[in-house]
Amino acid sequence: MSGAVMKAIVIHAAHDLRIEDRPEERPGPGQVRLRLATGGVCGSDLHYYNHGGFGAIRLKEPMILGHEVSAFVDALGDGVTGLSRGQLVAVSPSRPCGDCRYCAEGLMNQCLNMRFYGSAMPFPHIQGAFREVLVADASQCVDATGLSPGEAAMAEPLAVTLHATVRAGQMLGKRVLVTGCGPIGILSILSARRAGAAEIVATDLSDFTLALARKVGADRTINMASDPHGLAPFTQDKGHFDVLYECTGAVQALTAGIAAMRPRGVILQLGLGGDMSLPMMAITAKELDLRGSFRFHSEFAVGVSLMQQGLIDVKPLITHSLALDQAEQAFRLASDRTQAMKAQIVFATS
Amino acid sequence: MSGAVMKAIVIHAAHDLRIEDRPEERPGPGQVRLRLATGGVCGSDLHYYNHGGFGAIRLKEPMILGHEVSAFVDALGDGVTGLSRGQLVAVSPSRPCGDCRYCAEGLMNQCLNMRFYGSAMPFPHIQGAFREVLVADASQCVDATGLSPGEAAMAEPLAVTLHATVRAGQMLGKRVLVTGCGPIGILSILSARRAGAAEIVATDLSDFTLALARKVGADRTINMASDPHGLAPFTQDKGHFDVLYECTGAVQALTAGIAAMRPRGVILQLGLGGDMSLPMMAITAKELDLRGSFRFHSEFAVGVSLMQQGLIDVKPLITHSLALDQAEQAFRLASDRTQAMKAQIVFATS
Amino acid sequence: MSGAVMKAIVIHAAHDLRIEDRPEERPGPGQVRLRLATGGVCGSDLHYYNHGGFGAIRLKEPMILGHEVSAFVDALGDGVTGLSRGQLVAVSPSRPCGDCRYCAEGLMNQCLNMRFYGSAMPFPHIQGAFREVLVADASQCVDATGLSPGEAAMAEPLAVTLHATVRAGQMLGKRVLVTGCGPIGILSILSARRAGAAEIVATDLSDFTLALARKVGADRTINMASDPHGLAPFTQDKGHFDVLYECTGAVQALTAGIAAMRPRGVILQLGLGGDMSLPMMAITAKELDLRGSFRFHSEFAVGVSLMQQGLIDVKPLITHSLALDQAEQAFRLASDRTQAMKAQIVFATS
Amino acid sequence: MSGAVMKAIVIHAAHDLRIEDRPEERPGPGQVRLRLATGGVCGSDLHYYNHGGFGAIRLKEPMILGHEVSAFVDALGDGVTGLSRGQLVAVSPSRPCGDCRYCAEGLMNQCLNMRFYGSAMPFPHIQGAFREVLVADASQCVDATGLSPGEAAMAEPLAVTLHATVRAGQMLGKRVLVTGCGPIGILSILSARRAGAAEIVATDLSDFTLALARKVGADRTINMASDPHGLAPFTQDKGHFDVLYECTGAVQALTAGIAAMRPRGVILQLGLGGDMSLPMMAITAKELDLRGSFRFHSEFAVGVSLMQQGLIDVKPLITHSLALDQAEQAFRLASDRTQAMKAQIVFATS
Repeated sequence: MSGAVMKAIVIHAAHDLRIEDRPEERPGPGQVRLRLATGGVCGSDLHYYNHGGFGAIRLKEPMILGHEVSAFVDALGDGVTGLSRGQLVAVSPSRPCGDCRYCAEGLMNQCLNMRFYGSAMPFPHIQGAFREVLVADASQCVDATGLSPGEAAMAEPLAVTLHATVRAGQMLGKRVLVTGCGPIGILSILSARRAGAAEIVATDLSDFTLALARKVGADRTINMASDPHGLAPFTQDKGHFDVLYECTGAVQALTAGIAAMRPRGVILQLGLGGDMSLPMMAITAKELDLRGSFRFHSEFAVGVSLMQQGLIDVKPLITHSLALDQAEQAFRLASDRTQAMKAQIVFATS
Repeated sequence: MSGAVMKAIVIHAAHDLRIEDRPEERPGPGQVRLRLATGGVCGSDLHYYNHGGFGAIRLKEPMILGHEVSAFVDALGDGVTGLSRGQLVAVSPSRPCGDCRYCAEGLMNQCLNMRFYGSAMPFPHIQGAFREVLVADASQCVDATGLSPGEAAMAEPLAVTLHATVRAGQMLGKRVLVTGCGPIGILSILSARRAGAAEIVATDLSDFTLALARKVGADRTINMASDPHGLAPFTQDKGHFDVLYECTGAVQALTAGIAAMRPRGVILQLGLGGDMSLPMMAITAKELDLRGSFRFHSEFAVGVSLMQQGLIDVKPLITHSLALDQAEQAFRLASDRTQAMKAQIVFATS
Repeated sequence: MSGAVMKAIVIHAAHDLRIEDRPEERPGPGQVRLRLATGGVCGSDLHYYNHGGFGAIRLKEPMILGHEVSAFVDALGDGVTGLSRGQLVAVSPSRPCGDCRYCAEGLMNQCLNMRFYGSAMPFPHIQGAFREVLVADASQCVDATGLSPGEAAMAEPLAVTLHATVRAGQMLGKRVLVTGCGPIGILSILSARRAGAAEIVATDLSDFTLALARKVGADRTINMASDPHGLAPFTQDKGHFDVLYECTGAVQALTAGIAAMRPRGVILQLGLGGDMSLPMMAITAKELDLRGSFRFHSEFAVGVSLMQQGLIDVKPLITHSLALDQAEQAFRLASDRTQAMKAQIVFATS
Repeated sequence: MSGAVMKAIVIHAAHDLRIEDRPEERPGPGQVRLRLATGGVCGSDLHYYNHGGFGAIRLKEPMILGHEVSAFVDALGDGVTGLSRGQLVAVSPSRPCGDCRYCAEGLMNQCLNMRFYGSAMPFPHIQGAFREVLVADASQCVDATGLSPGEAAMAEPLAVTLHATVRAGQMLGKRVLVTGCGPIGILSILSARRAGAAEIVATDLSDFTLALARKVGADRTINMASDPHGLAPFTQDKGHFDVLYECTGAVQALTAGIAAMRPRGVILQLGLGGDMSLPMMAITAKELDLRGSFRFHSEFAVGVSLMQQGLIDVKPLITHSLALDQAEQAFRLASDRTQAMKAQIVFATS
């Protein structure tokens, strides 16, 4: 195996995306070698591609992108059991240390030494998973038998919205607002419905995404570009919604959402943005509960299981599948919310 | 209207069920007169019919039975808005006082002065709703447009299991055991699934009910009569299930369930039984959480809404519909778990 | 009684505070006539006095100020039991309607029709309690036997911080930061300690208030004016504090607090301010939980009881007691955090 | 050091307690050698001494007893930092594996491979800490500077009641019943008060323990032997108490407590007993919440800190201190609730 090379998708700077040769790695004890099946382009990948980073997080060296991936098991390192060659797995990009004080409390997504695929936050950067051959810990691999490789590659963003849903607490019978209908917003709709939400209203600026929102179960959608006061009816009597999934990171969306929240409502902040000027008087007087939600841990396997049982169907989100040599087109498509939801790159089909 | 009479289903003593004439009532301010559509026979109705009561609660005077009912609006009392003649409504049998200390805290189902239809708990007894014409508070009526009268009459038992589900807290991705697959057990399966349960195992002693459990979504069923050790695989490593809906009121079911619960698991006690000898060492050492769940409040309207949206389908439970003059047969059928799930009595069809 | 007049403290505009004659009222059924004992000057009173309002809430007509009051029972209206003439009571300024949808859920502090003493939020304004004779509902009166009138008048601000503490959830063994050491900050220290906080750090810009913070139990204080980076040691490893009581309404304090919060920490926003520009990336990535806290309900009686049992001692806060004819001086003193904590006005001593 | 021997307190069978020589051990990496200071006799030690075990847990080989201990640091193994020779430490007897699925979730007290000092639950038994020289992991040692060795040895039972208090959720302003006033009951009173309980009523059969209950803060005590209906006034209107610490393991105490609990009240089951016949109708209809509570994890260090700050004072519980050669007398004293609360054995004083 030594000397073998593979292709990887590497970002060097904004709009400088290259497909490069990289040496294959060998699995150590407890690890597996995987042939990548499918990789989904995520919003953070797009930030690197379009802007070279976001906020204070900037590219400082070339980095393999990608953290939404499924793969076929190719070889098992010493001591690995429960996986077999050829098996389709969803691969969690989350690698907490297991030793820091947050890991010791079970808060793995807050690990002080997290090595999350395709992240420029520490330096050297944590290289990502968009490569033909990936060596991963066996514990990152969740059996995805019965799913398509594309569905299995949705396990990661689905885990993000399931984690937010768990943080929201009891959802049964609740009235839910989703601001922003990119993939995270659409998966929030699916997650909230799965957890028992009784009413789901979704907003965005794109008719394309809102049509998909309705398709996956939103009871009502509002295009805030053409109907900027569309949430006004929900602001009567201090507000209407019990839960808000804020998936834009835009202050206008959050502010409009706050006005439509009923007292003691819970806001899940999923969208990553910079500083925002918030109406603190409304937050205080209505006793709203603004909760950050970041990544996931145990929800990754839960999401795979829910998809396998047919309890959550992510297929409508996958609007584009492109070959590896069309990777840059996948990034461009994924950047366009008027025609694409999730664009995926196919590395191998078996 | 004065002088008009109607038929009502009255229990006088165990196995002494009569269809009797009763005078119709006139709606006061804030009330409505309803023509009953459908009434479901509940386990507590059956206790009065088969045994004259249960535990310390005994019949001391004739009592109209019934508390699972749908109806057509017939006339509106002064000041009633939002309801119209001919409209199908689900009628909540729960009438809390609104003034006692529990009502003031929002715990209406614990009202000190509750007047719940068809209950022999206080004396004089609270007369029930199995009567052709019922005068009710407008606030008891929930619009059921789009549902069949039979479905609407399921709102009450559905509210019971939704209330238990709310008491369980977050359900998303949880592993659930349901012991006892009468109507409350079956509705527990539907409620747990609606709230996001990932795995549902159900037990009973009847193949008939277990087949229905699978039909509505149980992943696996165990007949504890033919396979008394069927839960043994779930007792490894301190246990498997996160949540138990105990719907039998039988100590054997609860004890077997406790052994299969993982540490910190939540047991919802729905089944009404007498004293039970419990393995307190297991409850203490595994830090289980045994929570009583009793009736409902806001969950009644939530359940109607979930049915209207197609998010919960109760139709498979309604195995028998009989005419009013066959009421006693409905009670006999409902007592037989080898062939009936929910038996309903049809009072009027429009 | 008709024709009797009393003195009241009336705000007409910023810095236009007058002591005026007003007609006494007569208690109706369920009400009591009270002779006011002591009234504390609150931050919102000061906003009206110094600025004529705050944010969008402005004085539009003369308004009697005051909502932190104790009183002696003087006469009982029809049907009042459990109170007797001469008894000292703490008087809750909170008068929810009991009928709106939030009251029906037990969220009385979110009442849609709240009539809270001395509030310019609706128009006509809700007149306040700084008057020699006050007619109140018996249900507003909590027996304060054993307390001084000054302590009893602290029940209202104490209820505010107890409510926030209840909203924080479990406090036992927690590490707590309090930003802002006016009366609400000091009472937050007392409340957090009473609820089991293990470590309490407090910040302010005044050495006077910080000295009082230490006196009532803060383990450490930081003057952010002289030591602007004093919280830096608490920002290591993602942060230190489990709970933040934000009592300033100033964005600098909240931002500094956010940096010192550990992941999943809870921020109780008590300080009322305008819009604030918040570091949303930190809130999201550390999964902080920013909870508004507003007024109180059942905590009013709880606070009186805790004071009566000696479990909370508010006496150190009462730095100034002035006679009614010195009311304006009380307002000026209360505005000066370098020499006063709580200034109270004595209306009667028995 | 090799060849050195020390004394240990070894139970061979019921009433066969011996002080025996055992070889000293050498600290490995990450470990410390400790000279034991003080050891408290716990209820489970007494079960072994008086009955040879409890329930299904029986002595099958000689076992060193003891798990409530403080010690002086004597030598540090490789890599140990933060501890120094001569320092007084409280030693946690809890040694979870850190790897099993419960440890991975942060539920260390439910570890599948727990090695808790002085426990006959697995075989070979887990030897205890009543020995002159103890080798422990550095992570078990919590600095106890400022405490007496006797207080430091109370950290373990205090952690048990703090853990139960955390499991109870918010305690501020709550009404608390404690059934059973042995050391765990008395520490429950201290813990509940520290966490903000407003009213504490305690029951027992011994005037001696009830006097101590009042001394540490119970507002009222009831001797159920002389006043068997003493809880009757608390059963009005469905009951009075929000929280019950059940510390007897006796069915009579739990049953009497259930009758005095208000709806939705939380029962913390701390007392270890066999099977109990419970009034399930009351649990279900009042929607009580019966929660097992077992051992502790992070609460051990919290308790030491609360004692160091003077926020919890355990000194009144320590009624007897005896020398090592009087160990058996300590066991006999500790078995007698008419004259002893906590009996401790002094191994070394510096």
